[in-house]
Amino acid sequence: MPGTSLTIRPLAASDEAAWRGLWAGYLEYYETRVPEAVYQSTFARLRSGEDHEFQGLIAHLGDRPVGLVHYLFHRNCWKIENVCYLQDLFTERAARGQGVARALIEAVYARADAAGAPAVYWLTQEFNYRGRMLYDKVGMKTPFIRYNRPV
Amino acid sequence: MPGTSLTIRPLAASDEAAWRGLWAGYLEYYETRVPEAVYQSTFARLRSGEDHEFQGLIAHLGDRPVGLVHYLFHRNCWKIENVCYLQDLFTERAARGQGVARALIEAVYARADAAGAPAVYWLTQEFNYRGRMLYDKVGMKTPFIRYNRPV
Amino acid sequence: MPGTSLTIRPLAASDEAAWRGLWAGYLEYYETRVPEAVYQSTFARLRSGEDHEFQGLIAHLGDRPVGLVHYLFHRNCWKIENVCYLQDLFTERAARGQGVARALIEAVYARADAAGAPAVYWLTQEFNYRGRMLYDKVGMKTPFIRYNRPV
Amino acid sequence: MPGTSLTIRPLAASDEAAWRGLWAGYLEYYETRVPEAVYQSTFARLRSGEDHEFQGLIAHLGDRPVGLVHYLFHRNCWKIENVCYLQDLFTERAARGQGVARALIEAVYARADAAGAPAVYWLTQEFNYRGRMLYDKVGMKTPFIRYNRPV
Repeated sequence: MPGTSLTIRPLAASDEAAWRGLWAGYLEYYETRVPEAVYQSTFARLRSGEDHEFQGLIAHLGDRPVGLVHYLFHRNCWKIENVCYLQDLFTERAARGQGVARALIEAVYARADAAGAPAVYWLTQEFNYRGRMLYDKVGMKTPFIRYNRPV
Repeated sequence: MPGTSLTIRPLAASDEAAWRGLWAGYLEYYETRVPEAVYQSTFARLRSGEDHEFQGLIAHLGDRPVGLVHYLFHRNCWKIENVCYLQDLFTERAARGQGVARALIEAVYARADAAGAPAVYWLTQEFNYRGRMLYDKVGMKTPFIRYNRPV
Repeated sequence: MPGTSLTIRPLAASDEAAWRGLWAGYLEYYETRVPEAVYQSTFARLRSGEDHEFQGLIAHLGDRPVGLVHYLFHRNCWKIENVCYLQDLFTERAARGQGVARALIEAVYARADAAGAPAVYWLTQEFNYRGRMLYDKVGMKTPFIRYNRPV
Repeated sequence: MPGTSLTIRPLAASDEAAWRGLWAGYLEYYETRVPEAVYQSTFARLRSGEDHEFQGLIAHLGDRPVGLVHYLFHRNCWKIENVCYLQDLFTERAARGQGVARALIEAVYARADAAGAPAVYWLTQEFNYRGRMLYDKVGMKTPFIRYNRPV
């Protein structure tokens, strides 16, 4: 898509429909769904500007919404400063291979720098091969694995 | 140690010296150290009772402080409720094999229940064999692995 | 490449140059090289037809050599029959995405069936993402990991 | 067990009953069983002295049989020499913590050296924590994981 520029900016109220579409695509990747109340509360929180809420960025290629990322600053006992947890990252299928996900991660890095957060991290499934091809370039695999309380 | 009972309770101001000793042991396991300012700010935050701060529990066998755990309630975009992140878990070497770590995890589970947090999770190194022997019993391994922003 | 048919057959003496080129590409993937004596002995063994030697298949798209696989039948203490170890699998870059690797694996499956080998297995690096996209379709990940004697 | 010496030697015909008991314990660890015909053929093969058969070592503490290991020399396309595959390693529960498994691995290393085999390797389940505590000392984890043909 020569001539189509990529822009990344914080979610605006007017992005709600676009954000819903992208986030549904993301949840589908994880073969999950969330109730309407979660769409509503999460979008409101992402837009709230409050300290302890996730924030959201949306990526456009030209006018087309193509990706999103959510991130949270939270405490870490090992540090004075907050660290940054990047929870959701998604590029719609048709826009892959154009650097959208990398640009979203780098946009979070820039916001972490601006906030003085000395660390950014995320979790991904061991078998998310496409994601990891990128993550190995922009991040560093750690030996940490996640355990959950059994449901 | 028959007759020596295990008690778990929130950190009190008078636990500072005990907590410092235990946390230093924990950090040593990770072959790391943190500056004095982090000991001070972390202990103060653990005791603050504020919503977005880690909280700490300490375990005693009889009168002897033997373990600690830190946990944080934070937002999760997939849910309305906060989830619970258990960050630091430690039992001093001499007290291992007596159920201290399990009791600490279960104490966090109880607090998550009381707070209405539908999920508790933690990260551990893939090669933390002793830890994982316990985690496989009280938790469930997920396929999620952690990536960090390169330093 | 419509109209270009894929053929898979055992290595012939006349395949030596093609095999050398493909195997060099494979070794390059592993960032390794082997001495000329190994090229010679391995090619001779692959063609020997002896029971305890690796055998080799080569794939062509039309006239063009594009891939190879090596496999060995060996004892397994848990079974009466030999099992089949697929050691080297390679498709040259320009021919990827056309089913060559899958066809090579399936050709080994067919030879294992013909030989009465009740199991076929292979090892791959955890971060061989492109390979694993295929292996998850034609094979089954096990929890087994490999340890080496330190060099 | 002070004064109880550990000896490791090749399986003798008179070890059959002891070997059966140990190997049954090993298979139980993997929650599997094999038919009587496999016990018979495997024991005969382990004792055959043939080039392409697994060989077996048995460990005794004093007079008591406490462990076994099976190993096979086989071709490797990357080398002129054969490599050594250590398939089964077992120490009975009551004899653990006394260096039996380490001594068995080291005995295989010595036989690999004697045979001119430049590599020894084995596979283990990612969650074999007790085994891996030892393997991290006497071996080196690789990033290779095993895939099987689906059954």
